[in-house]
Amino acid sequence: MLFLTGPLVNTPLTGIFPPLVTPLTDRDTLEVAGLERLTEHVLAGGVHGLFLLGTTGEGPSLSQRLKAEVVERGCRLVAGRLPVMVGVTDPSFADALALAGRAADAGADAVVIAPPYYLPLAQSELAGYVERFAAASPLPVLLYHIPSLTGVGFEPETIRRLLNMSKVVGLKDSGRDMTYQHTVRAIVANRPDFSLLVGPEELLAEAVLLGAHGGMCGGANMAPRLYVDLYDAVRAGDLARVRLLHERVVRISDAIYSVGSSGSSYFVSLKCALGLLGLCDDLPAEPYTRFTRAERETVRSRLCQVGLLNA
Amino acid sequence: MLFLTGPLVNTPLTGIFPPLVTPLTDRDTLEVAGLERLTEHVLAGGVHGLFLLGTTGEGPSLSQRLKAEVVERGCRLVAGRLPVMVGVTDPSFADALALAGRAADAGADAVVIAPPYYLPLAQSELAGYVERFAAASPLPVLLYHIPSLTGVGFEPETIRRLLNMSKVVGLKDSGRDMTYQHTVRAIVANRPDFSLLVGPEELLAEAVLLGAHGGMCGGANMAPRLYVDLYDAVRAGDLARVRLLHERVVRISDAIYSVGSSGSSYFVSLKCALGLLGLCDDLPAEPYTRFTRAERETVRSRLCQVGLLNA
Amino acid sequence: MLFLTGPLVNTPLTGIFPPLVTPLTDRDTLEVAGLERLTEHVLAGGVHGLFLLGTTGEGPSLSQRLKAEVVERGCRLVAGRLPVMVGVTDPSFADALALAGRAADAGADAVVIAPPYYLPLAQSELAGYVERFAAASPLPVLLYHIPSLTGVGFEPETIRRLLNMSKVVGLKDSGRDMTYQHTVRAIVANRPDFSLLVGPEELLAEAVLLGAHGGMCGGANMAPRLYVDLYDAVRAGDLARVRLLHERVVRISDAIYSVGSSGSSYFVSLKCALGLLGLCDDLPAEPYTRFTRAERETVRSRLCQVGLLNA
Amino acid sequence: MLFLTGPLVNTPLTGIFPPLVTPLTDRDTLEVAGLERLTEHVLAGGVHGLFLLGTTGEGPSLSQRLKAEVVERGCRLVAGRLPVMVGVTDPSFADALALAGRAADAGADAVVIAPPYYLPLAQSELAGYVERFAAASPLPVLLYHIPSLTGVGFEPETIRRLLNMSKVVGLKDSGRDMTYQHTVRAIVANRPDFSLLVGPEELLAEAVLLGAHGGMCGGANMAPRLYVDLYDAVRAGDLARVRLLHERVVRISDAIYSVGSSGSSYFVSLKCALGLLGLCDDLPAEPYTRFTRAERETVRSRLCQVGLLNA
Repeated sequence: MLFLTGPLVNTPLTGIFPPLVTPLTDRDTLEVAGLERLTEHVLAGGVHGLFLLGTTGEGPSLSQRLKAEVVERGCRLVAGRLPVMVGVTDPSFADALALAGRAADAGADAVVIAPPYYLPLAQSELAGYVERFAAASPLPVLLYHIPSLTGVGFEPETIRRLLNMSKVVGLKDSGRDMTYQHTVRAIVANRPDFSLLVGPEELLAEAVLLGAHGGMCGGANMAPRLYVDLYDAVRAGDLARVRLLHERVVRISDAIYSVGSSGSSYFVSLKCALGLLGLCDDLPAEPYTRFTRAERETVRSRLCQVGLLNA
Repeated sequence: MLFLTGPLVNTPLTGIFPPLVTPLTDRDTLEVAGLERLTEHVLAGGVHGLFLLGTTGEGPSLSQRLKAEVVERGCRLVAGRLPVMVGVTDPSFADALALAGRAADAGADAVVIAPPYYLPLAQSELAGYVERFAAASPLPVLLYHIPSLTGVGFEPETIRRLLNMSKVVGLKDSGRDMTYQHTVRAIVANRPDFSLLVGPEELLAEAVLLGAHGGMCGGANMAPRLYVDLYDAVRAGDLARVRLLHERVVRISDAIYSVGSSGSSYFVSLKCALGLLGLCDDLPAEPYTRFTRAERETVRSRLCQVGLLNA
Repeated sequence: MLFLTGPLVNTPLTGIFPPLVTPLTDRDTLEVAGLERLTEHVLAGGVHGLFLLGTTGEGPSLSQRLKAEVVERGCRLVAGRLPVMVGVTDPSFADALALAGRAADAGADAVVIAPPYYLPLAQSELAGYVERFAAASPLPVLLYHIPSLTGVGFEPETIRRLLNMSKVVGLKDSGRDMTYQHTVRAIVANRPDFSLLVGPEELLAEAVLLGAHGGMCGGANMAPRLYVDLYDAVRAGDLARVRLLHERVVRISDAIYSVGSSGSSYFVSLKCALGLLGLCDDLPAEPYTRFTRAERETVRSRLCQVGLLNA
Repeated sequence: MLFLTGPLVNTPLTGIFPPLVTPLTDRDTLEVAGLERLTEHVLAGGVHGLFLLGTTGEGPSLSQRLKAEVVERGCRLVAGRLPVMVGVTDPSFADALALAGRAADAGADAVVIAPPYYLPLAQSELAGYVERFAAASPLPVLLYHIPSLTGVGFEPETIRRLLNMSKVVGLKDSGRDMTYQHTVRAIVANRPDFSLLVGPEELLAEAVLLGAHGGMCGGANMAPRLYVDLYDAVRAGDLARVRLLHERVVRISDAIYSVGSSGSSYFVSLKCALGLLGLCDDLPAEPYTRFTRAERETVRSRLCQVGLLNA
């Protein structure tokens, strides 16, 4: 736990935080060696921290037991080298809080919480829920705005209200609407410790160019250095390089995540690519299943096209 | 477990199955006495079975531990007098299956499963998921169609595919679109053991009039006899009485469930009414909170207006 | 204009009102002979009135000029034998009102108006819009609730407000949510002249069983007698016959409207069926196009299966 | 018509194109003097062209007659000084094409067409529709992607198909999802004459930073110079100035467009502001109505706060 008295309280988290994929060997079995390889891979790429059990990590699809295992092993692997954030989103308050406790015990630095999906929720109810959760949480809390999956997101006025809690230390914006993010950034400007991180990697360049603190880029599981380089180029104000690297990010995204034919393509193709890159097993969590051989070959040839794999 | 070799295999479940409210005294504490009072109340009303941990029971909002407790105590209370169905919907396959195991051990008769909400899901993925779940489940499985909360529902072609599994024994249709239900009923007609139950109580009359087998009526927590009477009137073909009782059902729904100002009003107002009726605590599960005093007084006066409470 | 001082003012419209298909020979050319054949076909089937330029009539897709021609020729063909309603829904108030004027001049009995789609609209704005429109309209006004196409529908409180205008004489409910319709029916109960008509033909039986006044059934373009018979069976309380005819309605709908692969299938397959039945040209309005030969043969064989065409 | 043999064919439209507000004195009456003042105001601000009858111009809410008048007067006022684009979006193909003819006759340079809203539309149907429209149109065609209002937008594969038509010369992206825009930009890269313009002004900076050609900024009706300056700063690669001006754009947007309480607030507050700035009447088109006095005072004080009006 680097940050309770450190950066997370006084300065925002900045940089690239890969939402780590959760390697599996079976429906409810962690691929321990894969987790280790993947973790060392992204750390070697220069990332600034890790996000465990996010959407990319298929967190909500995992059992309570498996989530706890991911947190404990993940924190042990990182061993304090970098900050670790843990997604604790759950429709159950008690189970989300229990996971936050496991995260604190394991040495994580913060938890990330989305609205409790499933039941409908008004903004005032959402605000109250987060206030109660943050008050009870042993770790600082980042908000997770992803209305496409949770039905409801954090409206600007809700964020304004939650800023009153010093334990609420950031927002992961996966809403894909940058007009929302610009409005939110204006609101959080008076909380210099508040971290604004962008979800979709295709928006990393513009988000950081206009004031966000970094991004949680799923593609950083495959190619961590690319996103770190892009982040650095933005910070350096090197617009030509930003455009070049941004185009590469978009090319990877368009090439890989479009394989398969449904809403699952991002998750399954990313795991498939990680398997082809030798980083971990390609088994997705239920309810998804592995790609067919033909789909895997498509991913392989696309990885070659975008230069992530040698033909 | 009345039904594995009994009605659930050979004949459909028919009648009124209240989706039982889960009484709480605290965020993660079951009100045991309230559960007992409520269970005896609905059984005394003549209902045909119980549905534990449904949406009305705030199932997805409860901790894994509390869900298991509800199942075990609920089944013990019913003690085989009537069939018990258990909602096991969970984004995690393993946790849903574990709860199905607890339900089987406790003596429940069937489980009810909705699509694993949160991550996006194609119909073919949903079908495969349910096939794997049903194959592993120790109990027969009913499908839970509630796309407003799960994002995706069971399209007719998916139901057609799942009919091939004898362990898939029914559908709870909470989709509010009766054109869907009519299409589904035509599809399931060649599975005489398949049970088609309707979710919203306001649709009970027409659903059963046109061929559904019964309903899971939240209002039956308050007034079980009313829904049983309506069901009986439909079965008897007494149209004048059907219209009279149906209007009463709609009047109760419009009066009570509209108190409060957000998507939570159904849940919070129903618990508030049960509290006022002396049946159980009115504490809703997180992320909801109790009504204010003013809202509670509104519910009280509405209960009087519709004849459920004496002024 | 039968009704300004007649039934439309004092008693509600009741029965089957086919939303008449608009036969075309070209993008902007009415098939006059087809319109005549189709009109006489549905009148011979015993329907209780006509609805011109509804959604089924592809009204919003037609030019202002063509809409006026449909109204004028349609009213002339009916020649006062039955009430005629005209859909005037348009994003432009002035053009909608101008069409209402053409309808009045042609002898129509009422206009039907949906929310001005395209721009977002709050309920209070919708209510004000309809009040201004109804005040200016030369004919009585029915509301058209079809939120799937207009984005916003008529919430119950908006209907309550609009009931204060005697010129607002009915609602066509195409929202597919019967819980909404039951709530609305309770609200309009104190306006005995107010007509509640249901849109989707698959909901005709239950709507009228529980108190609606009739339906606007697209299938009545093909088989008007079937829907009239179903309506009569409901009015007679003959439940066995209701179920039989209702199942036939659902079978036709499932068989025919599912041909083709997109949101247009209802419109294109219905016109295709009318072409195969020899009633009118099968050319849909832009942006739709005729079925391929293979799709047309599928419609032909489905029409035989459901008994609407001899093999 | 500057561009049929000029820039629109060989080079893309670049810069700031205000979607001009349509001043009204009555429901169906153009405020001619207001249109003149507003046009000269934005031209004096250095904009690069005009977009008449867009969403901001309330185009779909205006009568066919009034639309023609706006086009004719607008083109006469501009008098060839700058390119003029005309929104011709209409559910009716014939009426949209007729307006394109009026635009060509008046000397406009291109038309902008969104999917024909109201009826549901598959992508292949949309592509065919635009192909037929572009083939018949006397002017080059820009696509208008605004799925929040039209229900369906232009999916990347549809754009890929439409690029085969040289008459399709651009896309206005009002979808608010920059990941979409990045994918589209990669697709249109091999059509150097194709213009990619962004809709929401809050996204102007990032869109142009990463390769878009300009924007259609509603706020440019009030403060055209600001958006031109921001565009110039981006082109100059002056990041510090970009951030400064971008923040000003966001501040204006958050302050002004949030007045009022519904989906109409953008339209009504913008017209209110233009009224307070003395540029034109503040009467919105039906179904909207003028702000109350209190709301107008709020807009006035907000205009002062953001420096657009002297207190």
